[in-house]
Amino acid sequence: MKIIVVGASGAVGRAVVETLSEGHTVVTVGRNSGDFHADITRDDSVEALFREVGNVDAIVSAAGHLHFGPLASMTTAQFNIGLQDKLLGQVRLALIGQHYLNDGGSITLTSGIVGEEPIAQGVNATTVNAALEGFVRAAATELRRDRRINVVSPTVLTESLQTYGPFFPGFESVSAQRAALAYRRSVEGVQTGRVFKVY
Amino acid sequence: MKIIVVGASGAVGRAVVETLSEGHTVVTVGRNSGDFHADITRDDSVEALFREVGNVDAIVSAAGHLHFGPLASMTTAQFNIGLQDKLLGQVRLALIGQHYLNDGGSITLTSGIVGEEPIAQGVNATTVNAALEGFVRAAATELRRDRRINVVSPTVLTESLQTYGPFFPGFESVSAQRAALAYRRSVEGVQTGRVFKVY
Ligand SMILES: NC(=O)c1ccc[n+]([C@@H]2O[C@H](COP(=O)([O-])OP(=O)(O)OC[C@H]3O[C@@H](n4cnc5c(N)ncnc54)[C@H](OP(=O)(O)O)[C@@H]3O)[C@@H](O)[C@H]2O)c1
Ligand SMILES: NC(=O)c1ccc[n+]([C@@H]2O[C@H](COP(=O)([O-])OP(=O)(O)OC[C@H]3O[C@@H](n4cnc5c(N)ncnc54)[C@H](OP(=O)(O)O)[C@@H]3O)[C@@H](O)[C@H]2O)c1
Repeated sequence: MKIIVVGASGAVGRAVVETLSEGHTVVTVGRNSGDFHADITRDDSVEALFREVGNVDAIVSAAGHLHFGPLASMTTAQFNIGLQDKLLGQVRLALIGQHYLNDGGSITLTSGIVGEEPIAQGVNATTVNAALEGFVRAAATELRRDRRINVVSPTVLTESLQTYGPFFPGFESVSAQRAALAYRRSVEGVQTGRVFKVY
Repeated sequence: MKIIVVGASGAVGRAVVETLSEGHTVVTVGRNSGDFHADITRDDSVEALFREVGNVDAIVSAAGHLHFGPLASMTTAQFNIGLQDKLLGQVRLALIGQHYLNDGGSITLTSGIVGEEPIAQGVNATTVNAALEGFVRAAATELRRDRRINVVSPTVLTESLQTYGPFFPGFESVSAQRAALAYRRSVEGVQTGRVFKVY
């Protein structure tokens, strides 16, 4: 398969690219890295990406920023960061990407354990991750021509503990390699509308 | 209690006002109707509302617009309608309203059955409703001084079948009066971080 991986240089993305490169042609994308550059927060950039890359058999996203901070002082502008970036950015990849997705192809997005398990300062993250899980649940019912859509929800990666560890007290971490298996399950499997939890 | 109800003139809101008026002082709000006018899509408008109304014991929201349309032709701008209106609009009421909410007070938002059960052309609705349920799950862990937050998820109202019925084949409807009980349960009850499903 020809697979486009957005966020390919990240902690999650690197492992996904490594796993999917066994047996597939992977096109890597980042804002400033990879085979192609694109910004998921802009329609014109994502349109240009797919026009250049052409049709694909799978779209994988492991990108998207959130706002972390206490509810007590959160502004709507801060809250909107996660809505416009991790949520609408990944939805944009799906809405535009569907027009470049071959029959039988798949879309795989990324949420995270915080969607189900709130953490301190994580209200924007829980909201956005829950939204992404709602999006695939509904979008799966509308995609035609045997195309599928899922979301992977990893717990904190062992590789990211140095940065995010203090926000995940008592959470078990998983290796990026183990999280990457769920993306492979989504791409090569048969399910649709599913949340693949890696925790 | 002094309770502010936003969306008070709507199909849901009218029944909520009727129920809560037994034993409480209800302040009604709409964009163009009610005791006070406010637009939940604008910070300055919601700030002005709470400054005028002053502190309250409960904030209830039964407002918010979504985009309905097929996934195959949906644009990100269309998708963003639900994010900016029903989702961020209600989140805005919570983020700003928390500063005017008395100790032991509550916030009650509105999602809908489509968050759990997708319907045709409802991908924006499923996403937004799921997001709101994530928001209260997380926000409940951060609210201090015994304040609570919940969301009510009604199925289609019997009163709204004329408009929305064709989108809900085989769904049981409920009366607005029955849906309103869940808002009362949230306002007068003890739970927090909960989705009160009325279906
Ligand atoms: N790391 C974890 O423990 C963990 C756990 C659960 C869920 N997640 C989720 O997984 C996703 C990836 O996390 P990560 O830790 O792997 O992130 P990361 O290491 O910061 O990598 C982010 C990747 O996304 C790309 N990117 C950033 N902004 C972009 C944009 N606007 N358009 C296109 N590409 C963009 C980056 O490319 P450039 O560097 O070229 O900009 C990079 O390849 C996030 O949504 C995160 O919430 C992460
Ligand atoms: N009706 C149903 O069957 C049903 C079922 C499940 C969930 N819901 C959800 O319940 C909520 C209310 O639905 P509804 O059918 O009762 O709506 P509705 O009858 O159209 O009433 C909407 C109410 O919200 C107010 N409003 C609209 N936009 C506003 C804004 N920007 N700022 C402040 N107030 C605004 C309106 O006031 P003005 O008229 O003064 O503008 C009106 O009071 C929606 O989120 C809907 O998705 C409805």
